[in-house]
Amino acid sequence: MNSGILVIVSGFSGAGKGTLVKALMERYENYSLSISATTRSARPGEEDGREYFFKTEDEFKEMIQEGAFIEYARYVNHYYGTPKAYVQQQLAAGRDVILEIEIQGAQKVKQQMPEAVLFFVTPPGATELKNRLEKRGTEDADTIRSRLQRGCEEAKGMDQYEYLLVNDDLEKCVETLHGIVQAEHCKTARQQRFVRKMAEELQVFMKGE
Amino acid sequence: MNSGILVIVSGFSGAGKGTLVKALMERYENYSLSISATTRSARPGEEDGREYFFKTEDEFKEMIQEGAFIEYARYVNHYYGTPKAYVQQQLAAGRDVILEIEIQGAQKVKQQMPEAVLFFVTPPGATELKNRLEKRGTEDADTIRSRLQRGCEEAKGMDQYEYLLVNDDLEKCVETLHGIVQAEHCKTARQQRFVRKMAEELQVFMKGE
Repeated sequence: MNSGILVIVSGFSGAGKGTLVKALMERYENYSLSISATTRSARPGEEDGREYFFKTEDEFKEMIQEGAFIEYARYVNHYYGTPKAYVQQQLAAGRDVILEIEIQGAQKVKQQMPEAVLFFVTPPGATELKNRLEKRGTEDADTIRSRLQRGCEEAKGMDQYEYLLVNDDLEKCVETLHGIVQAEHCKTARQQRFVRKMAEELQVFMKGE
Repeated sequence: MNSGILVIVSGFSGAGKGTLVKALMERYENYSLSISATTRSARPGEEDGREYFFKTEDEFKEMIQEGAFIEYARYVNHYYGTPKAYVQQQLAAGRDVILEIEIQGAQKVKQQMPEAVLFFVTPPGATELKNRLEKRGTEDADTIRSRLQRGCEEAKGMDQYEYLLVNDDLEKCVETLHGIVQAEHCKTARQQRFVRKMAEELQVFMKGE
């Protein structure tokens, strides 16, 4: 059995990453969602090991010391990180693992796991992105300006992603994402067991003739 | 419009490359087949510009001088080559161009056109390859041995290909090949116009807010 693929999904805020990942997970069996660890408290309805692995600050720091994270960061007094063990165990079992993460985190993961595949999700154009950002609740000029500012920064990261997913139509976008993962499974670099076996068996046949 | 993709198809003799390419061309509209030029004479039923572009040796050598070939080689007293003009014109028109070519030719093309995508077609295992070779007409031991020898050499080239297409079931293999080409179209490197436009328009919006 070949190893699964680590599928990293980033993109513009407002590009519909969450909905896309959710639809992909519902439609196809072979994906596992990477679950982050955090030191923030569980909110009502959240379950340990489902939304997050909830850790104390001491536990989290110990995990950092042990190298148990693929990447971690601190936001607003809390730590967030991607535990390595769960991801590696799922990949080894042949499952494709989805990791939804912002651009800097994605780069850190790619450095540690270069066989990961990076996707950047984007609306079909800047106007659509602006419209989606404006529809996100509050519409005061400052908020929209700061969201656009963030979009400009996110745009600078696009070139570091291997695949661009234009999220015009959710259904199509799910199919495209899944199709790309299937294509990645066909990469010769991911089929080394087959390549070696084929070469060895042909040698055996040659000697037998 | 984005440029088309140059799809290079190589693989084991007996892997079913020709049938695969034919089925792909019949099923999907967006592919053009690269037509080789040759100095050998047209056989009955062959048409200039369909099976081959038929050239005199002087014409062919002039084309070599002009750099009109992506690659060319001489086999058994005749020249064979891939004319650059047709391929480039089709790619510029947004069409995906299929080039069925042996391993050494494929490497020459990749050197000249690094954005080409290389596929290696293989039966599902060495036993199947041996069976297919044995079914190809004559069955004397020498012929089979020399075919297996060639297979061993071809196997050494597999790692230089980006994608491995296991041709177990023709229908599935056509779909997989087509799916990979669609995935390749989503590569950020092939979407530079979109990436630049998005970044520019977001900047304009920022200034406008």
